[in-house]
Amino acid sequence: MDVGSNSNPEALPRFADVQAAAARIRAQVRRTPVLNDPDFDAQLGCEVHFKCENLQYGGAFKLRGATNAVLSLTDAQARRGVVTHSSGNHGAALARAARRRAIACHVVVPQGAVAAKLRNMEAQGAILHFCAPTMAAREATTTRVLAETGGVLVPPFDDADVIAGQGTAALELVEDVPGLTALIAPVGGGGLLAGTALVGRAQAPPLRVFGAEPAGAADAAASLARGARVTDRVPHTIADGLRATLGVRNFALIARHVEAIWTVSEEAIVAAQHRMWEQFKLLIEPSSAVAVAALLQQRAAVRGQRVGLILTGGNVDLEAVPLRRRLTEPG
Amino acid sequence: MDVGSNSNPEALPRFADVQAAAARIRAQVRRTPVLNDPDFDAQLGCEVHFKCENLQYGGAFKLRGATNAVLSLTDAQARRGVVTHSSGNHGAALARAARRRAIACHVVVPQGAVAAKLRNMEAQGAILHFCAPTMAAREATTTRVLAETGGVLVPPFDDADVIAGQGTAALELVEDVPGLTALIAPVGGGGLLAGTALVGRAQAPPLRVFGAEPAGAADAAASLARGARVTDRVPHTIADGLRATLGVRNFALIARHVEAIWTVSEEAIVAAQHRMWEQFKLLIEPSSAVAVAALLQQRAAVRGQRVGLILTGGNVDLEAVPLRRRLTEPG
Repeated sequence: MDVGSNSNPEALPRFADVQAAAARIRAQVRRTPVLNDPDFDAQLGCEVHFKCENLQYGGAFKLRGATNAVLSLTDAQARRGVVTHSSGNHGAALARAARRRAIACHVVVPQGAVAAKLRNMEAQGAILHFCAPTMAAREATTTRVLAETGGVLVPPFDDADVIAGQGTAALELVEDVPGLTALIAPVGGGGLLAGTALVGRAQAPPLRVFGAEPAGAADAAASLARGARVTDRVPHTIADGLRATLGVRNFALIARHVEAIWTVSEEAIVAAQHRMWEQFKLLIEPSSAVAVAALLQQRAAVRGQRVGLILTGGNVDLEAVPLRRRLTEPG
Repeated sequence: MDVGSNSNPEALPRFADVQAAAARIRAQVRRTPVLNDPDFDAQLGCEVHFKCENLQYGGAFKLRGATNAVLSLTDAQARRGVVTHSSGNHGAALARAARRRAIACHVVVPQGAVAAKLRNMEAQGAILHFCAPTMAAREATTTRVLAETGGVLVPPFDDADVIAGQGTAALELVEDVPGLTALIAPVGGGGLLAGTALVGRAQAPPLRVFGAEPAGAADAAASLARGARVTDRVPHTIADGLRATLGVRNFALIARHVEAIWTVSEEAIVAAQHRMWEQFKLLIEPSSAVAVAALLQQRAAVRGQRVGLILTGGNVDLEAVPLRRRLTEPG
């Protein structure tokens, strides 16, 4: 069983599905703020509007797709709960959405996932099932949990409802910032970028849509270059949210409308994360910093344009952050 | 010379001054987002709306008062530049406001100030004058710089224009969240809390206004208890923005309308900072966490109410934050 990509490729969501998702999930997600800084714009040579999904409930855009999927279930389907596999943000989001509907949520989690994300999932009431950190173990465990519970699988990205839900971030962004000419989003499994592409191409005129990916997990860039999904890469990146392999539906949508996927080094990711913390006081996780790093690197490609960039999440491991600072003199 | 409290106490700003400041500074400050989280509300037993001044340009509310002061200068006054003394946030804010008006900004800085705040000031073009970290050294150096430059002093908090400017954060908050019943702001020198009090008491009906202060720098609470400014305390707190002694005008306004000043321990400050990072993904500095800690501690006092809380800044020293995390397996 190829978990998450087992239905027919005709089942691609359309822009109307993003609009329907926006109406469906409105009461359960935060309309996150959009920030712009003229100083930053002057430094870059373009106008950048940051969609702060790091400030979404649960700290990530994933709540959008998960909520859309849970609210799209019939009562009969919902009764037996939902099942997914996730390193953290999708699992926590699905658990939150399930809790709002008072149904069970089972999450298959690879050992080694970020502690903050595990806590998020548990805090939302997720039932965790640990497995070895390989795709084979993940699929076997997911199959077993599905069989045991009779629940409905809500894949983290390769799913029409999830893609449509993730697209609502870009939909809010184009509503809030008139005259955007380009959209940038990071790509891992491709749920967000596919949803963003649906929104970008539906505008009049259509917006340019760019993906951003760690060079150490650049299967999406390779897939676009080859014209078919590249699924044999072993990801190696600090951006833990972007290690997944591009999904089937996601590839179909991204290949159709994304102009380019920009890849960035680990050093560039860390530098961009630092810069967003320092210049914007936005606590973003490395996966979000990937899009910022790509913009910094490719600024010439969007010079003079009005760019919307999605900051995807803020789930950073805080154990690593020392908070006891020196007690200095009166200031 | 008592730097910053040398004019007559009649010169207290009024609510109309806050409204005028809001119109004056509108184009130069960010209308910061207000965040609410139903889960957090349920945990606390009241409704809390966070005014995110940590997302203000420069990472602190201080831009409001500084911009109001700089824009209130005549051209003749402005020509010789502005002078202030600051451990960081006010200095950076004043430098930013001065740069927008293309005038010089001199800042007297105590040795031992937070590195991130020094960088902020320099990045905005401030001319720094270091002095020993004592009030006497600060006043002597400020007096010398004023004499040498002929510039105008813009005190960090004990100033009618600065207080009126800081009040605009609360003004936006009451505009954006109808039906607030209480406001909470931290207090150091008292610029923000005095401005917040002006806004709170002008509402119909008036809002309850509370201050929050580190127990290790609780001169404002002591001043309210005694009915006169207590100026002999030696502050000892991680909240570097709240070590100043309450100003003359600030005390007058706060004594008139603030219901209580809540004090919190260093441990509570650190815990609250952690919680806001983890639950809201908001990068806040310890001074902001003081207000959150006070709310958590005093939740019984505002049970069932609709509370507005000002998160004052996000200037945390990032040198202390390790960003190289382990590279784990695919997730």
